[in-house]
Amino acid sequence: MFKVIAVDHVGIACKDLDLSKKFYTDILGLECTGEEPVPDQGVKTVFIKCGETLIELLVDITENNDGPIGKYIAKNGQGIQHMALRVDDLEAAIADVQAAGARMIDKAPRGGAGGMDIAFVHPKSVGILLELCTPHKG
Amino acid sequence: MFKVIAVDHVGIACKDLDLSKKFYTDILGLECTGEEPVPDQGVKTVFIKCGETLIELLVDITENNDGPIGKYIAKNGQGIQHMALRVDDLEAAIADVQAAGARMIDKAPRGGAGGMDIAFVHPKSVGILLELCTPHKG
Repeated sequence: MFKVIAVDHVGIACKDLDLSKKFYTDILGLECTGEEPVPDQGVKTVFIKCGETLIELLVDITENNDGPIGKYIAKNGQGIQHMALRVDDLEAAIADVQAAGARMIDKAPRGGAGGMDIAFVHPKSVGILLELCTPHKG
Repeated sequence: MFKVIAVDHVGIACKDLDLSKKFYTDILGLECTGEEPVPDQGVKTVFIKCGETLIELLVDITENNDGPIGKYIAKNGQGIQHMALRVDDLEAAIADVQAAGARMIDKAPRGGAGGMDIAFVHPKSVGILLELCTPHKG
């Protein structure tokens, strides 16, 4: 058994990271709590704190704009690429989702940005790119 | 001056409302807190509570699937259509965003689902469809 605690973050594919960041910080008055390149995903992330949720701004940093965010923008334009729900037990969540007949992209937790363990549900099972995540233990 | 309090809701364009609802309730164990048709937007909404945020599932209920959600799905497929941030003073937010040089679609608050007053920021100014909202007073 597992429990969903909160919307951990909303991942937004941006063309111009500085411009988007300025909107959330300078105009909306929200706090930027971190910036982090994630080279193996070909992205740089900026975290904006909003209540118990982070707004995760994502920009492609690959040479040919062909990382996941570059491809998303080429197909859809800028937009909200994924939502992540924070769970108390990620391994139990992966097992229970699959036991219920839904598909996971990740069959085991893997490391994500911000010190989180993450696993994606398959869009065929939920209609969007949905991440489940929990703080990395140990 | 205004303050952004939380991610009020994340609006998800669904093809099959019942299927999406079952994923969040039956598989993830979240609570459905309401269902509401909004005929002048051509949508039916289902609210799923997740911490301080609602996941707002949206389905087109127009005859020709040509409401905002039907058009979104025709262009992008199912996906996360908008994000709404809860503010303490919506009129001040609209004024301050415009004073900072950004564009609002709605220059004054209007009624939305769930007893909220809402106003959309123009996607040209923030890159996504961003709603600002606050509980309706009086």
